[in-house]
Amino acid sequence: MKKNLVGVDIGGTTIKIGLFKNEGEIIDKWEIPTDKTNEGERIPHDIWESIEHKMSKHYIDKSTVGGIGVGAPGFIDAKKGIILIGVNIGWNDFELGKKLNALSNLPVYMDNDANVAAIGENWKGSGDLVDNLIVVTLGTGVGGGIIANGQIVSGANGTAGEIGHITVEKEGGAPCNCGRSGCLETVTSATGIARQALEAVNEGKNTKLAERYKNKNKLTAKDVFDLAKEGDAVAQDIVNHVTDVLGYSLASVATVINPSKIIMGGGVSKAGEDLLRPLRAAFEQYALPRIIEGCQFEIATLGNDAGIYGGAYLAKQNIE
Amino acid sequence: MKKNLVGVDIGGTTIKIGLFKNEGEIIDKWEIPTDKTNEGERIPHDIWESIEHKMSKHYIDKSTVGGIGVGAPGFIDAKKGIILIGVNIGWNDFELGKKLNALSNLPVYMDNDANVAAIGENWKGSGDLVDNLIVVTLGTGVGGGIIANGQIVSGANGTAGEIGHITVEKEGGAPCNCGRSGCLETVTSATGIARQALEAVNEGKNTKLAERYKNKNKLTAKDVFDLAKEGDAVAQDIVNHVTDVLGYSLASVATVINPSKIIMGGGVSKAGEDLLRPLRAAFEQYALPRIIEGCQFEIATLGNDAGIYGGAYLAKQNIE
Repeated sequence: MKKNLVGVDIGGTTIKIGLFKNEGEIIDKWEIPTDKTNEGERIPHDIWESIEHKMSKHYIDKSTVGGIGVGAPGFIDAKKGIILIGVNIGWNDFELGKKLNALSNLPVYMDNDANVAAIGENWKGSGDLVDNLIVVTLGTGVGGGIIANGQIVSGANGTAGEIGHITVEKEGGAPCNCGRSGCLETVTSATGIARQALEAVNEGKNTKLAERYKNKNKLTAKDVFDLAKEGDAVAQDIVNHVTDVLGYSLASVATVINPSKIIMGGGVSKAGEDLLRPLRAAFEQYALPRIIEGCQFEIATLGNDAGIYGGAYLAKQNIE
Repeated sequence: MKKNLVGVDIGGTTIKIGLFKNEGEIIDKWEIPTDKTNEGERIPHDIWESIEHKMSKHYIDKSTVGGIGVGAPGFIDAKKGIILIGVNIGWNDFELGKKLNALSNLPVYMDNDANVAAIGENWKGSGDLVDNLIVVTLGTGVGGGIIANGQIVSGANGTAGEIGHITVEKEGGAPCNCGRSGCLETVTSATGIARQALEAVNEGKNTKLAERYKNKNKLTAKDVFDLAKEGDAVAQDIVNHVTDVLGYSLASVATVINPSKIIMGGGVSKAGEDLLRPLRAAFEQYALPRIIEGCQFEIATLGNDAGIYGGAYLAKQNIE
C-alpha cells in the first residue's frame, strides 16, 4: 500500500490541492490560481508543477504516492477522465485525466466537484463512511452529491445528483441559471433566500429586513436567519417556506436513495440548528416513516476542504 | 463458470420459479402456491423441494447450478439475506437466505422484489444492461426499482426506490396504503386512476365513463385510456393529470439518478404509447435538458417473468 495521496479541487478562481497520508492526515494544503487562458490548457501542467514543488518541500518521493483524485466543475465522464462540459473554465471534452496522468505518471481519478466533496465529507467530515448518503450544498446555487452502495452516483452523462435543479414550482417560479425556472435553487440557495428577503422589502412588508436593507443596501441569507431568530415574522415566513420546499424535495430524494445521512453544507448551513430544526420537521411531514427512521441530518464540517479530502479518498478508493 | 441459474420471485399468492441457462435462456418456469401458515415458515422448504423436482426432471445436476437469486416482497437486508419486514406473508426478520442456503447448499442472493424485477428487465427485457436505470411498475400500487453504477440501490434499510410513496399532494391528497396521504401511487396506480374515474362519474361529469360504469358497475385504468383515445374530454383530463404528476415525479427522480432508461411496467403500461406520449411531454417540461437528452422511455417487455429473470441475474452477477 502506498503511503500518500493527492487531492485536487478545481474551481473557477482557484485550484485547491492537498497532500495527504493514506489514512487522511493532511500533510499540506494550498491554492493556486485557475489560469483560464486558452480554455484552461495550462491547468494540468500548473497542477502537477505545484504538486511536485510541495512533494519536494516535504521530502515526499513520487513513488510513495498512490494516486491523484480530482474534483472538477461541470459534467464529467469519470471512467474516461474527461470533462465533457465545464462552463466556468471553457472546457469541452477536455482530457484532464489523461493529461495529468501523462505529466505525473501517477493514476488519476476524477469526478464532478460536488460528488467529490460528498465523499470527502463522508470520509473525514460528518459522514462516517456510510454507504448511502446525500450531501447538499446551499451556496450561490444548490449542489448535490449522492453516494449509493458506497460509490458516487454520476449517472448516464454526469448529471446525477443535480438536486438544485429539481423543479419545485411548476408555474411562475423565479428564473434559474440553468435557463429554466422554478428550480429548487431559486428558492433555497443563499441567493434565492436573499432574493425573497428583498422581494418582501420591496412589497413594503413590515419587517426589520427593511431597516437592515436601508443600512447595508443589501440582504443576505444570514440576515434572514438572524432576524427570524429575533422573532421577525416576515423573516420567519421566508425560513419556513425555504425549509418546507427543501424538506419536501429532500423527502423525495431520500425516497429514491434511502440514505443513512443527509449532510447540509455551504454558506447557508452555517445557520446550524436554525436550519436543521424546521428542515427536519418538513422532511418528516413528507417522507415515509421508514425513510425518516433510517436517516440523520448533519451539518458539514470540512467546509472548503471537502473537495481535497474527497479527491484523496477517490484515489484511495480506486487504488486499494 | 457454472452453466445454470435459478430465479425465484415470491409473491403473496404464488411463488414463481425459473431454471435458466447462464446466458439467460429459460429452461423451465413454473409456480407454486405461497403457503402463509405459521408465518410462511415452510416457504424455503417448498421452494427448494420444487427446484429439486424440476432439476431432476430436466436432468440438471446441482453441481451445474451457480446459485439462487430471490426477489421477496418487503424490506430486505440484501447483504445478510434477511427479510426485515414482509407484511404480505407475515415475515419479521426472517432469515430466508440462510434457510434456503442450508437446504440447497447453493449460494443464495436476495433483494426486494421490485428491485429484482428491475434487474431482470435490464438483463433480458427493455434494459440492455445499462448502468443507470429506473423501472416503474404501475399496478395496484406504484413500485420502483433503481439501478446505479450497475447495482441495485437498496438503501440504508431496504427502502430505496419506493417512488410510489413520493408525496405529490402536500395537502388533501387521497389516503395511501402506507398510512399517509397524497403519495404518487394514490394518483398514478391503476387503482388511483380508476378512483379518479369514479369520482368524475359521481360528480355527474358529462363523460362516457358514466355509461361504462352503469354497464359494468366498475371502472378500470384501461377504461380511462380507451375513452381518452376515443376523445372523451373527462377521460383525457384524467390521463393528462396522471401523466403530468408522474412525469413531474420522474423528472425529480431522474435528476437524482440520471438514468439512460426509464422502463414502465405493470398493468397501466399496457397503454403503451398512449401512456408514454403524454408522460414524455410532462417529463420534458420538468427535467434539465441534459437529463432528458440522456434518457429514453421504454415499456417493460418481460411482464410477470421479470422477477425470475432478475433473480437469475442477481445470482449471476454475484458469482461471476
